[in-house]
Amino acid sequence: MIRMDRVRKVQERMKAQNIDAYMILTHDDYTYLFGEDRSQPRAIIPAEGQPLIVTFKAEEKEIKEMMQAHDVRIMSSVGEQIKDVVGVMKTLKGDREHITVGVQMWFSTPAFLLNMFQKANPFIKIANIASVMDELRMVKDNEELEIMKRAGEIADIGMEAAAKALRPGVTENEVAAEAEYAMRKAGGGRTQTPVFVNSGYRSCWLHGGATDKVIAEGEIVLIDLVPTYKGYCSNLCRTFVVGTPTAKQQELFDLYLKVQGTGIHSLKPGNKMRDIDAQTRKVIEDAGFGEYYVAGISHSIGLGFEETPAPTIHPADSAIEIREGMTMTVGHTVLAVPEVGGVRIEDTFAIGKDNAVPLTRFPKTFRLPAS
Amino acid sequence: MIRMDRVRKVQERMKAQNIDAYMILTHDDYTYLFGEDRSQPRAIIPAEGQPLIVTFKAEEKEIKEMMQAHDVRIMSSVGEQIKDVVGVMKTLKGDREHITVGVQMWFSTPAFLLNMFQKANPFIKIANIASVMDELRMVKDNEELEIMKRAGEIADIGMEAAAKALRPGVTENEVAAEAEYAMRKAGGGRTQTPVFVNSGYRSCWLHGGATDKVIAEGEIVLIDLVPTYKGYCSNLCRTFVVGTPTAKQQELFDLYLKVQGTGIHSLKPGNKMRDIDAQTRKVIEDAGFGEYYVAGISHSIGLGFEETPAPTIHPADSAIEIREGMTMTVGHTVLAVPEVGGVRIEDTFAIGKDNAVPLTRFPKTFRLPAS
Repeated sequence: MIRMDRVRKVQERMKAQNIDAYMILTHDDYTYLFGEDRSQPRAIIPAEGQPLIVTFKAEEKEIKEMMQAHDVRIMSSVGEQIKDVVGVMKTLKGDREHITVGVQMWFSTPAFLLNMFQKANPFIKIANIASVMDELRMVKDNEELEIMKRAGEIADIGMEAAAKALRPGVTENEVAAEAEYAMRKAGGGRTQTPVFVNSGYRSCWLHGGATDKVIAEGEIVLIDLVPTYKGYCSNLCRTFVVGTPTAKQQELFDLYLKVQGTGIHSLKPGNKMRDIDAQTRKVIEDAGFGEYYVAGISHSIGLGFEETPAPTIHPADSAIEIREGMTMTVGHTVLAVPEVGGVRIEDTFAIGKDNAVPLTRFPKTFRLPAS
Repeated sequence: MIRMDRVRKVQERMKAQNIDAYMILTHDDYTYLFGEDRSQPRAIIPAEGQPLIVTFKAEEKEIKEMMQAHDVRIMSSVGEQIKDVVGVMKTLKGDREHITVGVQMWFSTPAFLLNMFQKANPFIKIANIASVMDELRMVKDNEELEIMKRAGEIADIGMEAAAKALRPGVTENEVAAEAEYAMRKAGGGRTQTPVFVNSGYRSCWLHGGATDKVIAEGEIVLIDLVPTYKGYCSNLCRTFVVGTPTAKQQELFDLYLKVQGTGIHSLKPGNKMRDIDAQTRKVIEDAGFGEYYVAGISHSIGLGFEETPAPTIHPADSAIEIREGMTMTVGHTVLAVPEVGGVRIEDTFAIGKDNAVPLTRFPKTFRLPAS
């Protein structure tokens, strides 16, 4: 069902910022406002009046029920969709020369779509809708926190299945298979980033995935899971070694544990994102690994796997203060040392009055039995 | 290993089109040119000289081996990455006032990244690199065709597992779990779009996914799989009914079979994309379902799940002629009738001298036993 309480708040903020309409192109804000996760949604929230969904003919009945008498435009082709949107925008414009339309500028907004939108509507000035949406989505309400708690449990279930499957001779894809399967069976939706099973030299990668690489005894294996539940994400990363770790591998793991602990301790209301970074950086520098430090140990998470504040993507977010009700991860960046491997331990937390409450709780074990 | 044969062809085409450099931001062109699937890759191909990869410190050794003495820039933060790219662009610019840099404008190019790139490099004119890359990627070589054959087999394996799991009382997520698991175990990488298990009213959706909705006897269930193998996609969609279909459901299914058959028959060298659309549209109109027709029955597939030609996304692609060596799907659009359901049967084909050879071969069965 459409969440008119949230729509009204969005409209208030749009009016205050002189944004005439918000053109929704991504699943996260759509889910937030219309209560249902859809891929490739198209909706328009004018600063005043009825929200409007652009949909295909066969979805009409269902969407109308969800919208409770608010406006629904029907189309039967992409061409019609564009024409329809242009029509709505022209109506909103009225006699004015220009209007300002907000769009989301984040990972899931395709550049070509924004390009098409601008070409089809030359009278529109594009604004980044982050200034409207971030403030609303940053602090989660109780309903959202309950969903994210379940997303965290699903991540734990996935990691347990992955850890169980890990042994010399298995491929990264086979380990990913077990994690994905267990999370789906536990009620999880699609993972919002592909499952990482980065083993051996691949543990050093900043990003990753799972391949048909065979995992060997003694290799570091970094597993990163971002399951969703009702559209909301959880993020859980663990690093294992199958068999006996070398002294250097163990040193790196122990250091990351300390880094994450420091990060978790500083993740509380009043601190800024940059404080968390500074404190964790100091631990890494003091241990003599400063040259391998990658900024951005923590980021917000919710309907997006990384959302504001996310200083690795948007450096200005470093100035944002932690508030009660935010949901954040600690352990986002890999500590990778050439020839040794990469280590990362990441968990999701809900920020309480004066501390961070874990939503993912899988044990931080490094060594797994080799057989 | 870097594919210098392909890089040279890209450079020739760039020179002919006065594009000074190609800034790679997406995994598909990166895989095509550097022989390895990476998420969030950053590489620059100048029109003349050495290709260059921007990477993180811990990945240096591995990337250098892959690059065989070509240029690699090392950085340790996103800030450095931006600085590095700007530096390279300035060197390329030399004394000129502007240079033209190609980027990909497709689903996986995030709008904010392109925005950041433009702000950091005000002397750059952005060009759509499609004019360079499409011609090269559209026709697959034998190595690519072999990979896509295996991707098709993996899709078949996934569909078999999904069909086996389908019964009244099971959730969409549970069916998705079985498909994903089987495809991973068969050596598949991540699916390039989330698995669709659209049941009941959700079968009408143009896009989809899997949810915790319970599948009931007599409901239409539309399952769409896009597994990858070595970065290349296959696309397979089947529609089932668990139990006994109604006469209207059966009519819709039979019509779609005929539509797909017509599309497959017209998918051959010499025909244009618009011919396939026109011929399938006629079948739907003749059957009296014209008002439910959605354009875009066929699209190309490869490293991208939809790539040029893809008329649903880029209508001008309708004029593109089918050529031997292309890989295409037939059955892309849903035929959805309110109150009845949505039906779709999609397969992937390699275009031969005068016909379309199927790469996915799962039987086109509609009715599944209810228990």
